[in-house]
Amino acid sequence: MLKQPPVVKENDLSLLVDLYELAMAQAYWSEGMDQTAVFSLFFRELPAHRNFVLACGQQNVAQVVEGLRFTDEHIEQLDSLDRFQPDFLEWLRSFHFSGSIHAVAEGTPLFPQEPLLEIEGPIAEVQLLESLVMNYVHLESVLASKAVRVRFAAGDRPVVDFGMRRTHGVDAAHRGVRAYRLAGLAGTSNVLAGLDFNMPVKGTMAHSFVQSCDSEMDAFRTYARLYPGTTLLVDTYDTVNAVRNIIQWLKEDTDASIGGIRLDSGDLAGEAVQCRRLLDDAGFTDVKIMASGGLDEYEIEEIVSTDVPIDGFGVGTAIASSKDGAALELAFKLTEYASLPRMKNSPGKQSFPGRKQVYRQLGTDGFINRDILAGREEVFDGESLLKPVMKDGRIIEGAIPSLDDQVAVAKQRTQTLPAQFRSLKPVKENPVVISDFLRALQRDTLEKISNR
Amino acid sequence: MLKQPPVVKENDLSLLVDLYELAMAQAYWSEGMDQTAVFSLFFRELPAHRNFVLACGQQNVAQVVEGLRFTDEHIEQLDSLDRFQPDFLEWLRSFHFSGSIHAVAEGTPLFPQEPLLEIEGPIAEVQLLESLVMNYVHLESVLASKAVRVRFAAGDRPVVDFGMRRTHGVDAAHRGVRAYRLAGLAGTSNVLAGLDFNMPVKGTMAHSFVQSCDSEMDAFRTYARLYPGTTLLVDTYDTVNAVRNIIQWLKEDTDASIGGIRLDSGDLAGEAVQCRRLLDDAGFTDVKIMASGGLDEYEIEEIVSTDVPIDGFGVGTAIASSKDGAALELAFKLTEYASLPRMKNSPGKQSFPGRKQVYRQLGTDGFINRDILAGREEVFDGESLLKPVMKDGRIIEGAIPSLDDQVAVAKQRTQTLPAQFRSLKPVKENPVVISDFLRALQRDTLEKISNR
Repeated sequence: MLKQPPVVKENDLSLLVDLYELAMAQAYWSEGMDQTAVFSLFFRELPAHRNFVLACGQQNVAQVVEGLRFTDEHIEQLDSLDRFQPDFLEWLRSFHFSGSIHAVAEGTPLFPQEPLLEIEGPIAEVQLLESLVMNYVHLESVLASKAVRVRFAAGDRPVVDFGMRRTHGVDAAHRGVRAYRLAGLAGTSNVLAGLDFNMPVKGTMAHSFVQSCDSEMDAFRTYARLYPGTTLLVDTYDTVNAVRNIIQWLKEDTDASIGGIRLDSGDLAGEAVQCRRLLDDAGFTDVKIMASGGLDEYEIEEIVSTDVPIDGFGVGTAIASSKDGAALELAFKLTEYASLPRMKNSPGKQSFPGRKQVYRQLGTDGFINRDILAGREEVFDGESLLKPVMKDGRIIEGAIPSLDDQVAVAKQRTQTLPAQFRSLKPVKENPVVISDFLRALQRDTLEKISNR
Repeated sequence: MLKQPPVVKENDLSLLVDLYELAMAQAYWSEGMDQTAVFSLFFRELPAHRNFVLACGQQNVAQVVEGLRFTDEHIEQLDSLDRFQPDFLEWLRSFHFSGSIHAVAEGTPLFPQEPLLEIEGPIAEVQLLESLVMNYVHLESVLASKAVRVRFAAGDRPVVDFGMRRTHGVDAAHRGVRAYRLAGLAGTSNVLAGLDFNMPVKGTMAHSFVQSCDSEMDAFRTYARLYPGTTLLVDTYDTVNAVRNIIQWLKEDTDASIGGIRLDSGDLAGEAVQCRRLLDDAGFTDVKIMASGGLDEYEIEEIVSTDVPIDGFGVGTAIASSKDGAALELAFKLTEYASLPRMKNSPGKQSFPGRKQVYRQLGTDGFINRDILAGREEVFDGESLLKPVMKDGRIIEGAIPSLDDQVAVAKQRTQTLPAQFRSLKPVKENPVVISDFLRALQRDTLEKISNR
């Protein structure tokens, strides 16, 4: 039986590469093309239902890059593909990335053409990183960009991630929770990710527990005894009936303690209003109502804006798959090689050549006024978003903050988004201004391409 | 600095559990509820743009289940959550799944209500598997269900996976390729996954190689020398110009050998026609034309149905994210406990109780005529799709075929799909017939719930 490995080992991340990257690396190596290349990771357009991308993963991926090595076993496996010369395989065996990375802080809202990161180094080395770096940053940026919309819609009401079962695989289930923390969610149902990324772990019961007990009230009593202050799932058979039974029980048994009820199906708003009234009339004003079951940011906005008495939300599929924007057209493009600006001229895919910097200028109100996309050496007012993370193949001491600090920065940065960008309605405005220098560089580079 | 692990270790998959599953397991354990439960994994409805789900992952997940253990470190971490009793943690420390799994073959097309798998065992044990099993099967089924549409659209023209950079994380990048093999794709750009899942690894050059060379023709000459028979990417600056230059070069240098050209942007159909004519007129009829760049099944169907001379396709984002159906509403539901059928009665979420079997009946034409969803003990004509994979916690010898054999079965099974289900147009027909026994069991169970 062919071994079908269930997970990717950290040690094998170096082989998570598209073949053409290895083929190009061998070509650079064989042609003696070893000068410095600059590659930029950016997106040309926003997905249809996003007003910005919450860039995540671009600092942390430096940890992955720093550790990439090709083992003897990897070299043997690559040799079996019958495409690589022995000397190139020896070069791979001693590979470790020796270049530098500039990246924006985790949880920074970005707009089209703004680099999430730029990587510089000997061209063959940087080329090998392309797909892995893109994959790593794509996952967290896609999931965070959806989750932050849900958080905006929920306002002050907490949102908990229930999505593990419907993320795309175990890596998404795990690192997705990091992205949700950066996006401001309040907790996760996912134990491993909650422990690894220091996020409150939440959850009480599923329908199966209610179904397996002799009666619904047996299930509730057991849970309240084992987990005082628990949240009871009330929609297994008949929601209103369940809540009436709970009220009667709480009145009779004053030792019983529950913290809330959860609605998971049906007309959530209608049932919440009805349940709230029943609970309040009986004096249980402190029993909270949680809702889950296919919720997305639009339904939550409707619930919040109509003052439906739901105190918190569990959100699964919407944030797990980022259903309405499951992919982001991230591009990883060569912008400079051997000190010359580079670009391609494919229809609709023209990019800006050269090393870059983004200057974010806030208005006196504290909100983003404009971003200037500039050459790396230009100086403008405002905060420069791209900061050095790695130099000479080593992560710069202190350049990657603790996750708690990353979360604090992400919170501060999303607060600088003007209201229209935080809204679920699409905005047409684009706060990005291209510097004169970059425009001229693009023009000159295009001209050189055409004349060649 | 808080450690932010870049991948999930195989050893830690046991902690990839939703907290409520551990809470319920402790409740079952503390209440002495240790009888056999049956859980069924199925979907209630098809996503909007799918005529069937290509079920994948449900056999292989038994390998994951068999290996799940809680280590001393896991127990310590769980203890830190302050929710679990010492005796329950000891029970977890000795946990290994002792039940059984029935699953349909990898790559089986399924319809609503048909179980992908059923798991039986002591209720606390099965409950712990819920989210991990769902996550594992969800990933591969979502990606395979999209990829098989692309393959149908492409007909005999090969489709290669270029999607690694835009899958949701590294697990999706890796196991996704297994799903693509089951869906019938011809190759992948992804080296690790190609090696692990025995799929041809493909790829030649990106724009960055062309951009970094002194001229486009330098780049092409280098590649043809290093990789005779290679495919040249021709759209970096001006496609038609590049092809004219290639033709002139091939005429002058009869030692040069290329296998094809690749178009990656612009009007693919129009440029393919133009390039084909140029190549044919110059006598290079054997130089193939490959296309990539945002292709999906609809564009490929258009290309194939209008006889555009494109010989093969590289597909990325569409299959990487399954953009138009990024999530499948898989449900993992208790259907029996302590020998009694169980179901819930939430609005729109009624399910069929009891252990099940699916009998697939083919017509004389070899295509699916109907599926009968029946009780496990019922007998009907046709092939029974749910087969034992695991018994008493051990994988049954020979029950999980080699991947090559799984791929063969998947191919045979997709060939039994009637034409309208293989089409990209939505079908309204549902081939699933519910047995009288199951209907009666649902009715009786509902009645018991209402009378309770």
